[in-house]
Amino acid sequence: MHTVMGREIEEQPAAIARTLSALRPLRRHIAELSRSRKQVLFVARGSSDNAAIYGRYLLEVHAGRLASLAAPSVATHYRSELDLSDCLVVCVSQSGQTQEIVETQRWATACGGATVAISNVQDSPLVRDADLAMVTQAGPELAVPATKTFTTQLAAVAVLASALAPDPFMLDAELDRVPEEIDRLVARRSGVDEAVDLLLAQPDVIVTGRGLAYATALETALKLEETSLRPVRGLSYADLKHGPIAVVDPSVVSVVMAAQDGPMLAGLTELLGDLGARGGSTVAVGGDRRFAAAADVHVAGPNLPEEVAALGLVVAGQLLAEGLAAARGLDPDAPRGLRKVTQTDGQVGPG
Amino acid sequence: MHTVMGREIEEQPAAIARTLSALRPLRRHIAELSRSRKQVLFVARGSSDNAAIYGRYLLEVHAGRLASLAAPSVATHYRSELDLSDCLVVCVSQSGQTQEIVETQRWATACGGATVAISNVQDSPLVRDADLAMVTQAGPELAVPATKTFTTQLAAVAVLASALAPDPFMLDAELDRVPEEIDRLVARRSGVDEAVDLLLAQPDVIVTGRGLAYATALETALKLEETSLRPVRGLSYADLKHGPIAVVDPSVVSVVMAAQDGPMLAGLTELLGDLGARGGSTVAVGGDRRFAAAADVHVAGPNLPEEVAALGLVVAGQLLAEGLAAARGLDPDAPRGLRKVTQTDGQVGPG
Repeated sequence: MHTVMGREIEEQPAAIARTLSALRPLRRHIAELSRSRKQVLFVARGSSDNAAIYGRYLLEVHAGRLASLAAPSVATHYRSELDLSDCLVVCVSQSGQTQEIVETQRWATACGGATVAISNVQDSPLVRDADLAMVTQAGPELAVPATKTFTTQLAAVAVLASALAPDPFMLDAELDRVPEEIDRLVARRSGVDEAVDLLLAQPDVIVTGRGLAYATALETALKLEETSLRPVRGLSYADLKHGPIAVVDPSVVSVVMAAQDGPMLAGLTELLGDLGARGGSTVAVGGDRRFAAAADVHVAGPNLPEEVAALGLVVAGQLLAEGLAAARGLDPDAPRGLRKVTQTDGQVGPG
Repeated sequence: MHTVMGREIEEQPAAIARTLSALRPLRRHIAELSRSRKQVLFVARGSSDNAAIYGRYLLEVHAGRLASLAAPSVATHYRSELDLSDCLVVCVSQSGQTQEIVETQRWATACGGATVAISNVQDSPLVRDADLAMVTQAGPELAVPATKTFTTQLAAVAVLASALAPDPFMLDAELDRVPEEIDRLVARRSGVDEAVDLLLAQPDVIVTGRGLAYATALETALKLEETSLRPVRGLSYADLKHGPIAVVDPSVVSVVMAAQDGPMLAGLTELLGDLGARGGSTVAVGGDRRFAAAADVHVAGPNLPEEVAALGLVVAGQLLAEGLAAARGLDPDAPRGLRKVTQTDGQVGPG
């Protein structure tokens, strides 16, 4: 791969290993900070929002801790006074300078929340203002579509969830295997080119997943859209079945993402059959053998349990996005109309 | 209008008035049920999920109460044990028999939550199992796309939020004006046919809004998609600006929905300009005069303050969906591949 995005995809194993080493020693502080607080509230936008969605499921499923996502406009525009004394507020922004997130973190502090910043930039307002900072170790990211800053956010979120779980070390062995699994996916690119051919042939793409893999479906949709400049929708299995599935016809390619195990796999395998029966083409990412066999094309996922599969599954999605952009003759590194540091309102800051 | 959907759109003023009368006397019970509980957790899917999103903003902005949406799969598939002793859990389902929501409500009770069911069917499992039921008075709804069952859910959610607000009667006068405002919108259809012409001319549609009007954008996208069987994406202003805006080109029609007042209006007006500058056509729904002037076509919204504008704004969206389906020669009452009672997994029950 000769794009910057391609190089940054390859840098992920080392970036994740560095991030895990740097953040694990913080677990005791995280547990102390949240001792008297029952729940976790994430604050994020864009790719970081997808990392927060993974975090939300992981906290509820793995750590048994109620978790949800804040609506930043409640802070920045409505200036509501909420009681956050029971909340650990986790703000996620790779640059640490998205104004909306910085402002919402200040608001959370004023509302009584304890704050944790997850950012890739040590010297950023988000990190400076937080009660505790988890600085990811992705190194500088130059391509506009987030890759290594995203997977290191997932790693940070997994460390956070483990800190609040009854046994903080339970996911460690699995997380330690993530770098080699990503190395393998990137080296083999199994099914990626076939899937790109399928995506090229049709105008509409939807990406779906559920539970712990839902966030990777949303992130893959965002990556495909950013790099190919065509609308791509990411949506949950459940939302898909509650209406939008009716639009699936031969012009739609459905990408379905699943871990190799867990309670979602059976339903997602059945979904592939439903989608195919409606005449659409299907790409299965990850899953097990039955899942792979239910789709027109299978893209290999990681050999990781559902709790941490997201870190590898999304890399398969990155490979699809980079491959599709290249096949369309587009530059994935600097898509038209996008900048690296996004601001929700007003001025865009420096990269 | 000769479709069933059209008739049910027209029935909304009476349905909302009946619902407000039926549910207001419950406010004291709602306040009692949540006395020792600091936050509200909504459980819903599909259109009901959009009603919950409105509820979430209204509770945080108007009632100063932390509110969020549950991920039902955490209950139904992962069977996590969360501590919900601080939560009023509000389950929304028009039929009251969507298995996933019924199961999640039972789980919430087992986790220590106090439960409120919002349903249009008195004799339903959701209503039977709840600590308190808010039964909407839409009457039987026959068209597959929800219209009057959705706006009566919004009315129920507004009554719920008012019950938890410092002054429970503060929104009453505004809510009482909703029926006449909807009557006016339906009778005049101002801008609807021009907007349908614009939507017909291009393949891609996105619908956006923010804050208290965000839910109406999502619901309008869902209605357009259900009735026209084409992918339509609903997304927040903020998410749009964090990436997807790059895909806006002359093939995309953007529908932007706003209340006539409130802190979101300036940003949404500016957004219309941005979208137009990218070569896309724009439809403004609601807003004020400046907002209307910033778009190619303006569809009239209700003369209601932002807190309750959603109840009228979404009717403009329904008129667009019904008009677009008719213009495409489709039957909006029974879209291909959709049924009235949706189940996320397995068997679909009777209507």
